[in-house]
Order: sequence, then C-alpha cells, then structure tokens
Amino acid sequence: MNWNYMQPVTIRFGNGRIKGLAEEVKALGGNRGILITSPSFVKRGLAAKVQKESEGLICVIYGGVSPNPDIKECEACISMINDHECDFVVALGGGSVLDCAKAAAVMCQEERPVKAYMEDASLLPDTSLPLIAVPTTAGTGSEITCVSVLSDHEAGVKKPLSCDAFYPTLAIVDPELTYSVPPHTTACTGMDVLCHALEAYWSKHHFPIGDALAVHALKLVFDYLQLACEQPEHALAREKMAEASVIAGLAFTIPKTTSAHACSYPLTNLLGIAHGEACGLTIDHFLRINGAEDDGRLLELAKMLGFKDVEAFADGIDSLKRTIGVRTDLKDLQLDKEQKEALVQGSKHPNLLNNPVEITETMLRDLYRKLW
Amino acid sequence: MNWNYMQPVTIRFGNGRIKGLAEEVKALGGNRGILITSPSFVKRGLAAKVQKESEGLICVIYGGVSPNPDIKECEACISMINDHECDFVVALGGGSVLDCAKAAAVMCQEERPVKAYMEDASLLPDTSLPLIAVPTTAGTGSEITCVSVLSDHEAGVKKPLSCDAFYPTLAIVDPELTYSVPPHTTACTGMDVLCHALEAYWSKHHFPIGDALAVHALKLVFDYLQLACEQPEHALAREKMAEASVIAGLAFTIPKTTSAHACSYPLTNLLGIAHGEACGLTIDHFLRINGAEDDGRLLELAKMLGFKDVEAFADGIDSLKRTIGVRTDLKDLQLDKEQKEALVQGSKHPNLLNNPVEITETMLRDLYRKLW
Repeated sequence: MNWNYMQPVTIRFGNGRIKGLAEEVKALGGNRGILITSPSFVKRGLAAKVQKESEGLICVIYGGVSPNPDIKECEACISMINDHECDFVVALGGGSVLDCAKAAAVMCQEERPVKAYMEDASLLPDTSLPLIAVPTTAGTGSEITCVSVLSDHEAGVKKPLSCDAFYPTLAIVDPELTYSVPPHTTACTGMDVLCHALEAYWSKHHFPIGDALAVHALKLVFDYLQLACEQPEHALAREKMAEASVIAGLAFTIPKTTSAHACSYPLTNLLGIAHGEACGLTIDHFLRINGAEDDGRLLELAKMLGFKDVEAFADGIDSLKRTIGVRTDLKDLQLDKEQKEALVQGSKHPNLLNNPVEITETMLRDLYRKLW
Repeated sequence: MNWNYMQPVTIRFGNGRIKGLAEEVKALGGNRGILITSPSFVKRGLAAKVQKESEGLICVIYGGVSPNPDIKECEACISMINDHECDFVVALGGGSVLDCAKAAAVMCQEERPVKAYMEDASLLPDTSLPLIAVPTTAGTGSEITCVSVLSDHEAGVKKPLSCDAFYPTLAIVDPELTYSVPPHTTACTGMDVLCHALEAYWSKHHFPIGDALAVHALKLVFDYLQLACEQPEHALAREKMAEASVIAGLAFTIPKTTSAHACSYPLTNLLGIAHGEACGLTIDHFLRINGAEDDGRLLELAKMLGFKDVEAFADGIDSLKRTIGVRTDLKDLQLDKEQKEALVQGSKHPNLLNNPVEITETMLRDLYRKLW
C-alpha cells in the first residue's frame, strides 16, 4: 500500500492557550493583523478579548462571517486585508469563519475575484499570509486541513476548495473557548467529528496514520460527546471533544470524507440542516451499507470501540444521536416529490466516490426513503 | 493537558517509492547532491542504484558512515558537501547514516567544528540543506525525527542532539529496501520500534497524537516482527514493520524516549550491544516497574493489544524477545564489578527523567542484578 503524508500545521492545544497569541504572532513576524470572526463573537466580546491578547498586533476586525460563508464575505475580508496592509490573519470561530479566513489569506495576494477560484481552483496561489486558526467549536477540524468550503449563494453553489496553501500556519486549540457553545450545536459539531473520523477510516484512500488517529477520535466521541452536551462547562468533556476534533481533522485531511459528507451538502443547502447534523443523519446508514461488504476492517474497528460487530456499532451511533437530540430522520419536514428528487440528485457529490462501496442512485433513494 | 505538535516531514511510503527520487529532488530544487551512506551499501551496489535513480542529480557519494557514527565521519561529510558545493543531501541507511547526514546537512552551513555543537547544541543553525532520508531498516524512525545521535569516540561521548532544523525535508520509506536486512538485525531494529512506541506512550510528556500512533505501531510489532525475522522477503511483514517504524517515530518525537533508551546507551557504549537489542533488554522490566504504579493507562494499552493485564503484556514482550532471538540477560558476558558499576552509573541518562515512575539508583541496580 502506497501513501503520502504531510501535516504542516503547528498545533498548540490546551486550556488558556489563547493567552499565548501575541508571542505566537511575534514568532511569525506579524506586525499588523486582521481578526476574522462572526457577529456573535463580536457581540459577546470574545473578539475584543482576542484582539487584546494580541497586544495591539491585531489592528482590524472583520466580524461578518455567516454560516456557509458567501464569496462576498470572503471578498470583504480581502478588501480589509489590502486596505489595512495586514501581514497576518487570525481566524476565530467555527468552520465557516476558518474556511472564509483561509481563503482570504491566500486569495488576497492576487487581483482575481473569489468567483474565479471557485470556477478554477488551479488558479490559487501557492502561498498564504501567515494564518492562526482558533476554533471555537469542537467539530470542524478546519484549523488543520487544507480545505475551505465556500458558497456562491447567488449562483446556488457550495463548493469545497482544496490547496496546500490553505493549511493554517498555526492552530491554537483552546477547549475553554468551546464552553459557551450551546448543547444542540455541541451535538451537531460532535457528529461532524464522528463522521470525519469514521469516513477517514473507511475512505478508499484511508492510510495507516489516519486509521490510528480515527480510532482515537471515535473512542473520545463515544466517551465524551454526551457529557459535553449535558454539561457545557465540564472541563474534561470539552477538552476531550476538542482533542477528538483536531485529531479527526488530522485523520481525514488525506483520505478525504465520503458518503455521509456527500449527502450533507444537499441536506444543508436545500433543507437548511446544520452541517454536522446533516453528516450524522446518514452516517449509521452508510455504516450498515459498508459493513455488508466489509473486508474485516470495520469489524476490527467496531471491536476496538467495544461493539460486538458492525451492526451494533451502527446501533450505537443511532442511540448516541437520539441521546444528544440530533435528527434521525426527515419525517417532520414532509418533503414533496421535487425536494426528494433534488436530495437524491444533490447527493451525487464527488466525495461519494471515496466511499468503499459503490453507492448507486437506487441505494441513495432507498436510504432516503427510510428517512423521509 | 497542554500539548504542542509539529511534524514538518513529508512522507512517501510504499514499495518502489525510491524510484521517484529524481522527481522529488527536482521538486525541492536540488541540482548537485551528496549521497551519504555506509560501506555495505556501496559494496552491495545499492548506493550506485540510488545514484542512478537520481538521474545524475547526486554527484558524489560519502560511503564511510559506521554504526554509532563518530564526529569525524560527520566532518568528512561536511567537507565533501562544501568541496562539491552540494545543494541537497540524500541519506541512505539505518539510524547511524540518517543521524550523521542530518547533522552534516545542518552543520555544513557554518564554519564551526562538529565538536562545538556536541558541547553546545544551542549553536546549531536553524536551517538545513534539503535532506531526503531513505531508511533501510525498520527501526530507527530517524527519517522523521529532529534528533541526531553522534559519538566522539576519542572523548568517550555519545550524545543525542536535537533541533528543529534536523527534521528531514522528505522521508522516502520503501519497505523493499529492508528485504536484505538479516534476521538478527531485523529483530534488533524491531525491538527499537517496540521501545519507541511503548516509551512514547508512557513518557511523562506523552500526548494524544503520540498515544494513538504508539498503539497502532505496537499492534504491528506484535503481529509482524516475528514473521519479518523468519521470512526476510515476506512483503506484508516487511511493509507492516516499515509502517510500524515510521509511525513509532512520529509517536516518540515529541514525548521523547525514557528509561529503556537511557539504559541502552551504556549497554551499547560499554558492551557493544546493538542499539535496538540494548533498548529491548530492559523494556519489559520497566513495563513491570511502571505497571506497578499504573494510573490505568498501561492496563488500557495492554487490553488494546489483547493482553489481560500489564504483567501479561510484559510476559508477551519477554516471549517475543526469546522467539526472535534477542538478549534477555547479560549472563554470558560475565561482567566484573567495575563494568557493573559503570552500567548502573551510565544509565542515569537524562531520558531516565521522562519515565513515569522515578527510577532510583537502587532500582537500576536491582534491575541489572536480574540481568547479569
């Protein structure tokens, strides 16, 4: 088996690590920085706190990143970077903020509109402004991946862009920043972690380092996700979910995600279901499908996680979803024929090809029939 | 728990990957390279084969690296790099070759003698010539670590030097290159892998990514080391041991090694026992010592590896050592009083401080008493 590995992001993990921000910026040679974040962090004062931690090195804040960030938000960040001649970027937020900031830190170096890169990712420059990624949810993994998912809402397009320049320079993973995440968001982002790890493990492109890290992250999700949802300030549960998130990110960067993520895109775009919840909706169903043609790897994984077989593992995921209160079906939405068809067609995303078992349209239709 | 992670080495893993050497050199911008290796690879023609794979980009070969490389060998490499104005380095061999080449690729950039860096590692430059590390044994992990162990035989000193610039640019791990390694060397280097992984896991400085990778590597050692010793051309066994080696290397880079490695230094320096065999000699004894004060982590590890408890795990290591024919004691050497004392005193190496249980002189003496 041939595999390649590269993981250029330096990680600082631990409670209170955000306090080392100024020192990290200085080590990177940064002088004038932009903080990219979302409105809620501006409102709640965390953006100001982080700016203060930078000891004056962050000179401007863009606080307008929304969920499923639009290319217009990315353009706004780029303008601000250029207007203020920023030489480093700090991204503070969930996956949307991190993705938007990663794109802006690379795209600001050239004159092209963001739309041009959405159409042809090969145009992306191969360098980036130094970028410090500070996740505030335990889910995305975006702080250590080279992927940025952007939307062009006008054109009805949501697309993951991938290039080596998108790897942040540094990830500061401070579990304390996740204490204020409400239970339902914790549940959704936790399901994203579970899917990153499980899809990394079963991806056609899985590789040994990813496998080992995926097992570790999955164990943590089963041990700590429920507790993090029930007790938002439980230090150990938050720390372990932050650990699971960054390690699942390392696990899937190379093998990429597969079927559950493929289906998540139309579930989010068409029905507005949050990303992690959308991924989690189908993950146990795909586990049963993949388990039926298992070469032994999924059974081994199930046993490592303490389940007697793959079916019990899938039952365990279903049960976890019910406990933490995320969707297990789409029945309440009463989808019409057109919506159903759009879901099936929209799920034929390229990531579907990374699934170990070929997923036909009939299989997608059968799976969704159980859900709607 | 706070932890940091950095792993800047790009890895290419798989049978026949050495054939991509010229392409890799070109991607790094190399024009005139030196191949650093040991006499056996020159004699057996592998050095010439690798030079050929470089399509003329390797212009000179230094083939004089010996086990436990002396600073004079490192000086000789540096002279050759400077005389031929080399702009990249390829290291082909076991840990000794890789360590010597890593030091030469960094130290060649300044005028100081190697001895100066042995005395004060803070003098080391923070850059390196591009270095491609090609391991020929499954054991060292040196291809992805930032450590170089050098000896000044005249002064009676063997010392690990550590700095970020020592990380190779690229590791090409081609399991086929290990097929010619004889069974006893396979056994010894395999014990080194086992120790890297287990010591990484129990080190006071252990961290989650290292833990996950250590578990993976340990499983592979128990599953494949015996087979690789018994059938040197068994493709799967060789591939899995090469995988275990590089992954154990990733596991221990940050937590560092501990007690078994500390004891290995005098065992090698004073008694000439091969490095991996020397590490393996005490590892199961330290497992019992650490197991007696276990907080549950070692029991969990033992169970993940299929043992009922830590004692059974230690028995498993002892049994593996007997099966593959590496030392389980020192009785045949009939050590005199002076030698015994030198062993005990020499084992008080700084790495001993990374052991989770404090190891006193009395404990070292008790342990060695069982062995000699």
